[in-house]
Amino acid sequence: MEVIGHIHTPFPDKFSVPRQPGLAPSVTATITLCGDYDHQASIAGIQAHSHLWLMFQFHQNAAAGWKAKVRPPRLGGNKSIGVFASRSPFRPNQLGLSVVQLLDVIERPQVQFVVAGADLVDGTPLVDIKPYVPYVDCVPEAVSEWAGEAPQPLNVVFSPLAQQQLLNYLPQQPKLQQVIIEVLQQDPRPAYHRLKDQDKSYGSRLYDYDLQWRVAGTSLIVEEIRHC
Amino acid sequence: MEVIGHIHTPFPDKFSVPRQPGLAPSVTATITLCGDYDHQASIAGIQAHSHLWLMFQFHQNAAAGWKAKVRPPRLGGNKSIGVFASRSPFRPNQLGLSVVQLLDVIERPQVQFVVAGADLVDGTPLVDIKPYVPYVDCVPEAVSEWAGEAPQPLNVVFSPLAQQQLLNYLPQQPKLQQVIIEVLQQDPRPAYHRLKDQDKSYGSRLYDYDLQWRVAGTSLIVEEIRHC
Repeated sequence: MEVIGHIHTPFPDKFSVPRQPGLAPSVTATITLCGDYDHQASIAGIQAHSHLWLMFQFHQNAAAGWKAKVRPPRLGGNKSIGVFASRSPFRPNQLGLSVVQLLDVIERPQVQFVVAGADLVDGTPLVDIKPYVPYVDCVPEAVSEWAGEAPQPLNVVFSPLAQQQLLNYLPQQPKLQQVIIEVLQQDPRPAYHRLKDQDKSYGSRLYDYDLQWRVAGTSLIVEEIRHC
Repeated sequence: MEVIGHIHTPFPDKFSVPRQPGLAPSVTATITLCGDYDHQASIAGIQAHSHLWLMFQFHQNAAAGWKAKVRPPRLGGNKSIGVFASRSPFRPNQLGLSVVQLLDVIERPQVQFVVAGADLVDGTPLVDIKPYVPYVDCVPEAVSEWAGEAPQPLNVVFSPLAQQQLLNYLPQQPKLQQVIIEVLQQDPRPAYHRLKDQDKSYGSRLYDYDLQWRVAGTSLIVEEIRHC
């Protein structure tokens, strides 16, 4: 399988990646193409579509391989289901699928797409890009027992220190606060931590920032935002 | 890339395959898994989902490779667009994506899924199966300039000979007439034939049947249905 391009996102590691595409719409990412694929011809007319499918490799899991049964975070991490009944990254062929919104196309000097809603680790290799065709890809009658609705978001609040830090970063990153809210409101804690470690402080990364935060009830408190 | 299973459909060749999934809902297909993947564990809980994504290989096009520009039938075959702006089967990594409806799961002696709406050639190799998760995969606000709506179906009528033949096959294939209508109403003619060869007779296959038909205006006349 050949890599046709890469995606560049604000998520340097898995821990801070939104668990599903589209849940963090303010997060923009950039796609670049490789070698022969990096040519205006191969993307001609792509602006006719508002959304794209990305087919990618869970490259960080290549060594781990696949497991027949997995425990998805959406099920609380304590229910085990078959890998083909899940969107687990530990799967045969490490193939992933995400829909993103196409915001902009830059053709020169290199082909670049700007997209919103990507749930991928920075540097993830892509193996295909396809247009999202609503009349076949959007199935409004589809139902899914365990993932019928988006999870309830946490209420994200900022400590006085974090608020002051946001103000300092505002000139370089005007959307930083909104992106932090969208990413953290989804509760990035591993499912098995949610019940026991109520007062534990966590660290995660976003762009070049180290975030420190903890969860209290239905709120998530951002304690510190350090540029690194 | 490892093949995880195969799909068994009524379409022995490309010519009779519906051009998009979901356009022929009466067509059922069967999925079987390979080797280590053929185990109840890897599909546990899949019934919680009404629809599945199939990721597959356009195996008949492997030798042809990919082209930077393609002429999709939906655009009349005379407009050329980039491969990443299309769902063309002649693409990098020959990767295809289709949503199907999950009708039934058989666990023993071999894992089998019965699905509806598949647009794949009989024997197509699968490289992944994922649940369709409506709240992320269905994007009602997505728009696509050139494929915003399903194409207008042809009016399928049967000649007296074909009607008699349908009656003969009824005991073995009670849904044959409906399947023929759904498959042929999409006008399987190559786009470049549509304008010129108005009276040409075409042959296509469905299950073990040879169909003879022609198009006249907005009607498609099924002339003969031979069991072979």
